[in-house]
Amino acid sequence: MRDLIIIGAGPAGLTASIYASRFFLKNLIIADQLGGTMAQAHKIENYPGFSSISGLELANKMNAQAQELGAEIKFEKVTKIKKNPQGIYQVFTNKMDQEPYQALMIVLATGMQRRSLNIKGEKEFQGRGVSYCSTCDAAFFKDKIVAVIGGANAATMSAVHLSNYAKKVYLIYRKDNLRGEPIWNQRALDNDKIQVVYNTNITQIKGDKMVESIVLDKSYQGNSELKVNGVFIEIGHVPIKILAQQMGLDLSDKGFIKTDELQKTNLSGVFAAGDVTNRADKFRQVVTAVKDGALAARSAFEYKNQFEQSKKSTVSYR
Amino acid sequence: MRDLIIIGAGPAGLTASIYASRFFLKNLIIADQLGGTMAQAHKIENYPGFSSISGLELANKMNAQAQELGAEIKFEKVTKIKKNPQGIYQVFTNKMDQEPYQALMIVLATGMQRRSLNIKGEKEFQGRGVSYCSTCDAAFFKDKIVAVIGGANAATMSAVHLSNYAKKVYLIYRKDNLRGEPIWNQRALDNDKIQVVYNTNITQIKGDKMVESIVLDKSYQGNSELKVNGVFIEIGHVPIKILAQQMGLDLSDKGFIKTDELQKTNLSGVFAAGDVTNRADKFRQVVTAVKDGALAARSAFEYKNQFEQSKKSTVSYR
Repeated sequence: MRDLIIIGAGPAGLTASIYASRFFLKNLIIADQLGGTMAQAHKIENYPGFSSISGLELANKMNAQAQELGAEIKFEKVTKIKKNPQGIYQVFTNKMDQEPYQALMIVLATGMQRRSLNIKGEKEFQGRGVSYCSTCDAAFFKDKIVAVIGGANAATMSAVHLSNYAKKVYLIYRKDNLRGEPIWNQRALDNDKIQVVYNTNITQIKGDKMVESIVLDKSYQGNSELKVNGVFIEIGHVPIKILAQQMGLDLSDKGFIKTDELQKTNLSGVFAAGDVTNRADKFRQVVTAVKDGALAARSAFEYKNQFEQSKKSTVSYR
Repeated sequence: MRDLIIIGAGPAGLTASIYASRFFLKNLIIADQLGGTMAQAHKIENYPGFSSISGLELANKMNAQAQELGAEIKFEKVTKIKKNPQGIYQVFTNKMDQEPYQALMIVLATGMQRRSLNIKGEKEFQGRGVSYCSTCDAAFFKDKIVAVIGGANAATMSAVHLSNYAKKVYLIYRKDNLRGEPIWNQRALDNDKIQVVYNTNITQIKGDKMVESIVLDKSYQGNSELKVNGVFIEIGHVPIKILAQQMGLDLSDKGFIKTDELQKTNLSGVFAAGDVTNRADKFRQVVTAVKDGALAARSAFEYKNQFEQSKKSTVSYR
């Protein structure tokens, strides 16, 4: 029996553990793998304290820190979470040779997957020219040619941001009108470095060691293949929501977990942190994830104190 | 002329600069000193990525990172900020041999001072037994005796938190009833390790290299001096609000700057981040400060884009 089980070992989950241990909450992290989405970033240059570090290296540091403070971590796949009649959460995993893990509280930090194009070359060149985060990676494309795929805010903002570094930015969209906020559409259209390519899909990403070109489903200025050094896929995010859904947590229309400012969900004793949450700020960064994790742990600490107090009151005053 | 001037070089200000540079905003940091309140922490063990680091060392790393990305930093005292008729902010400092610094936008990250007791020994033993942050420092007092000064939530929470580490915690309050939330008062009162000492002030902190005792203004169990290894002063915070006040920013009753979730203040082009802000979560940590700084920079990026767009519209359509 633990105080807290944390699902997910990205920056939100690991930070929840670091803070939970310092609040003296016995905690267990269960995750498919270490680092979450962060582990995919080949270089992180915007996490304060590290000028440049790989996502996996940063995850390793956070994990070591969590374990020094007393966290347990298990790499298993959580299949189900339910509450027993005593109000204790039971966490079942794919390791069926054991009893479920039990805890008074849960932090869900299951993260998010970028929506992918599912085309040839996309997976192969991830981290070698294919990126899902212009804020993270734009600076690596100074004086290069890049393509941004998408037509909503994420895509137009990325294109504008990339234009500060790249010498040319293709913004490739399958429809005939950008659908971001007007200000961002206009910024993209007014920008001399950005060429918007409408009504076009990309069908393949080609290269050798790094990305070299993309193949279009119709020709643009006489070519159906464009030379690019980078491809930024900005067609949305998908929260990893299956456990949240199953537990009956309130989700946003897009499937992100709704929390208040203290990371509380609609279920008592269940908190959520990181990319899986429905942030007001829509800024999914390591810095926002660690803040969420810390707050979730603090809320858990307060919840446990109230829980113990209420048990005591019941005994004393009834 | 810069895009952005950031006032303050704690984790919020430095992170605002890191993100601003990555958004291609030309930015200048002006601060009295590097690191803000963080620089006073002799050990930080809860900033994810560093198992243990001094506050100053972490500030140095963040500063180096900010400068690598192109930030300028000036150690001067800002005396006044005003907006000129063209909508540009002018920042005056104590270096009067120069023109004011100018920028389209301001991030205020001026931080906070802990309220102090102003008694003998307090300043001398800061970082050597005297602390203003139990979350930061509790773990250093394992099996030691500590005193917490105060009677509101910060004090009762600190006492409970410290009881997980220390062998005895005196909670010393000048009034005759704890005034925190009932749950926290009760937790403190029920805790065998915590002894509440009412109607008592401390008048001096004594020691040699480290804190050894405190002097009380009335005797407790026959002694007017108590042996302690640590003194946690939890009598509130004071935001460094003088610039904010002068600029006409909306402040909370306690003088913290009101911002929305995107760190915007009531003045256009002015953002605030870190301890000086009126957080909903009331959790003033390095992780919350860096999140604020990143968001302030992103909001500044969006503001600049809108500003340029509106200038363009004026020219085209009038």
